Amino acid sequence: MSEPTAIPALAARAAALDAADELGKLRERFTLPDGVVYLDGNSLGALPAGVAAATADVVARQWGELLIRSWDESRWWTAPERIGDRIAPLVGAAPGQVVVGDSTSVNLFKALVGAARLAGPGRTRLLVDAATFPTDGYIAQSAARMTGLTAVPVDPADVPAALGPDTAVVLLNQVDYRTGRLHDLPGLTAAARAAGAVVVWDLCHSAGALPVGLDAHAVDLAVGCTYKYLNGGPGSPAYLYIAERHQAAFDSPLPGWNGHADPFAMTPDYRPAEGAARGRVGTPDILSMLALEAALDAWDGVRIEDVRAKSLALTDFFLECVAAYVPQGLVESVTPAGHDQRGSQVSLRTENAREVMGELISRGVIGDFRAPDVLRFGFTPLYVGFADAERAARTLGHIFG
Amino acid sequence: MSEPTAIPALAARAAALDAADELGKLRERFTLPDGVVYLDGNSLGALPAGVAAATADVVARQWGELLIRSWDESRWWTAPERIGDRIAPLVGAAPGQVVVGDSTSVNLFKALVGAARLAGPGRTRLLVDAATFPTDGYIAQSAARMTGLTAVPVDPADVPAALGPDTAVVLLNQVDYRTGRLHDLPGLTAAARAAGAVVVWDLCHSAGALPVGLDAHAVDLAVGCTYKYLNGGPGSPAYLYIAERHQAAFDSPLPGWNGHADPFAMTPDYRPAEGAARGRVGTPDILSMLALEAALDAWDGVRIEDVRAKSLALTDFFLECVAAYVPQGLVESVTPAGHDQRGSQVSLRTENAREVMGELISRGVIGDFRAPDVLRFGFTPLYVGFADAERAARTLGHIFG
Repeated sequence: MSEPTAIPALAARAAALDAADELGKLRERFTLPDGVVYLDGNSLGALPAGVAAATADVVARQWGELLIRSWDESRWWTAPERIGDRIAPLVGAAPGQVVVGDSTSVNLFKALVGAARLAGPGRTRLLVDAATFPTDGYIAQSAARMTGLTAVPVDPADVPAALGPDTAVVLLNQVDYRTGRLHDLPGLTAAARAAGAVVVWDLCHSAGALPVGLDAHAVDLAVGCTYKYLNGGPGSPAYLYIAERHQAAFDSPLPGWNGHADPFAMTPDYRPAEGAARGRVGTPDILSMLALEAALDAWDGVRIEDVRAKSLALTDFFLECVAAYVPQGLVESVTPAGHDQRGSQVSLRTENAREVMGELISRGVIGDFRAPDVLRFGFTPLYVGFADAERAARTLGHIFG
Repeated sequence: MSEPTAIPALAARAAALDAADELGKLRERFTLPDGVVYLDGNSLGALPAGVAAATADVVARQWGELLIRSWDESRWWTAPERIGDRIAPLVGAAPGQVVVGDSTSVNLFKALVGAARLAGPGRTRLLVDAATFPTDGYIAQSAARMTGLTAVPVDPADVPAALGPDTAVVLLNQVDYRTGRLHDLPGLTAAARAAGAVVVWDLCHSAGALPVGLDAHAVDLAVGCTYKYLNGGPGSPAYLYIAERHQAAFDSPLPGWNGHADPFAMTPDYRPAEGAARGRVGTPDILSMLALEAALDAWDGVRIEDVRAKSLALTDFFLECVAAYVPQGLVESVTPAGHDQRGSQVSLRTENAREVMGELISRGVIGDFRAPDVLRFGFTPLYVGFADAERAARTLGHIFG
């Protein structure tokens, strides 16, 4: 298929923006297929360059040669805390508060039940983002059922009004997975805590895309995945943040032997480890965990504030290109225009969205579709440039043309 | 270090047994370090030959090139059920009842809470193997606390007497992790079911070492890890068996979006999938899961009954060699002598067990130590031979000599 013709002024703008982009050289830290504009890093991040070699070493040498000895010699045992401390600065957490392992859903269960227990008796409601990614709602229902709470769906904007002396826990997403809307983590955290509730943030669509500031904003608990903007690989382990002030009282519903203070004593009574390690459950998934560790090398020397600045410039420019290339009325952005309300993706509502995304992918522009009518384009500043944004919008316009 | 001298008759017996061993050629399906006798496959199985290439393909091509498209094109999405069906025949289960994912501890939580809900009201006790691997006891306590049951430690031999109309759930290990004792799965399952209880078996130390017969013995629920006798790699995903007759009523405490009947509809209400898939939780850990899938190729054409026969011959021969090489009174086997009570490991109690195991490992015989005084030697028939057993016993005798 031939490429549609570019608007010269936009192509020139893209070239100039890319030339001035300090982060542009980071693309070399990733292996991306030729000819593809990859705008789905908000679902599965691209492959960092060092992962293949690291994984091969884990398999052939650490497992194949050292075998059981690698639990110590290859530092497998301490990987959940060590890699947690690599993620911590990206979400604004001091060391010792983030532990890696399990899926986001499993960590949500730990966090929500743990939060309900921290909240104490007399509080009966668990407020949960009404537009949440579904697993958060399902797990919130289960956690509520098992702790005697009632899960109540609330629009994040209405949370301050819904808070009261009966609020035990509040579960919110920093960035909405469908619309890309950025919620007010500092303000909503402060409001929830002022009401005496324990607040849990899901960072899946924000960590690695913008500054989170968990410690600075006194967040209680948080979870997130590592396979989106952190590029850990398909289904790579998630993480749990337990603010230091809550660690001694954090009471996990999944007290597996890895979270024991002295796991190899193998005593019949559970005594939780100090620190974030009490968020551990079973034996950590070493292949995936060490692939993630290697993937995090892509962040060496990168300031998340610079990532955020480029992300906003990319989504601004993409929206400008969409306005120029796509005939008016055919797509509508459901992502807020204001920078303070925008994550790192642009979601466009259109008719036949599933088919349109199929066409885009067949032309080398990879985003994704979310039912019923949304095209999602994720902008990952570490490996997406302004020419990518221009080509994506131009291809979209051509499909409608 | 020079090798200690062999007793000629034992060395000749070992050579003859290895020459007659039909399974001996399966060792070629594994990559093992030279000069090492590996008797810790009951903790971390050896590396199957095809895993390195399979993992490299998952990283470089499936992730790096196909990116998000691999969820369909590389069949990532269906891996938990597909690999479950690969494990099923090894544990005597018809297809559609085993799902892979999460850790053993997390699957125990699903199974125990699910079992409590299947048992229904009026039953108040959860009986749990008093000598269990600790995580089972810790998770049982948590599951009991969250479902209103009382967890009661019971010696497996005393379970029939402890069963009553108040018994909701029974959690047992088929093989004891410390002593290697094989418990009577058919008899204990029948007794528990006759009392109206729901029985959950932990197969960590039996699956891949001996016939389990989940369907034949009408087990209700089971869990197991895949990194011991199934050789899936460090921390590889565990599995959950839900007998077909219980699937429609199985009510998981971890209803993540992957267990939804229509996950991409992304509806706010949870509707569980049909079949074992309702045991899924979050996004599956693809790197580790597909390494496991490749590892299971080592089982192609292998009959578990043949594995069991060789396992018993190996542990018999090892005990005979220990009796010949180790001066009387220095070690005591805590593994039962009767074949019907023995798994695939031999556990020897001795003084200074931790130091003795360190000496063995430094001489190339890798087993492990379990507090306070046990040397564990696991015999994995797919890659351990009779000469290995003789050398291990001889080295042990030399350390005491």
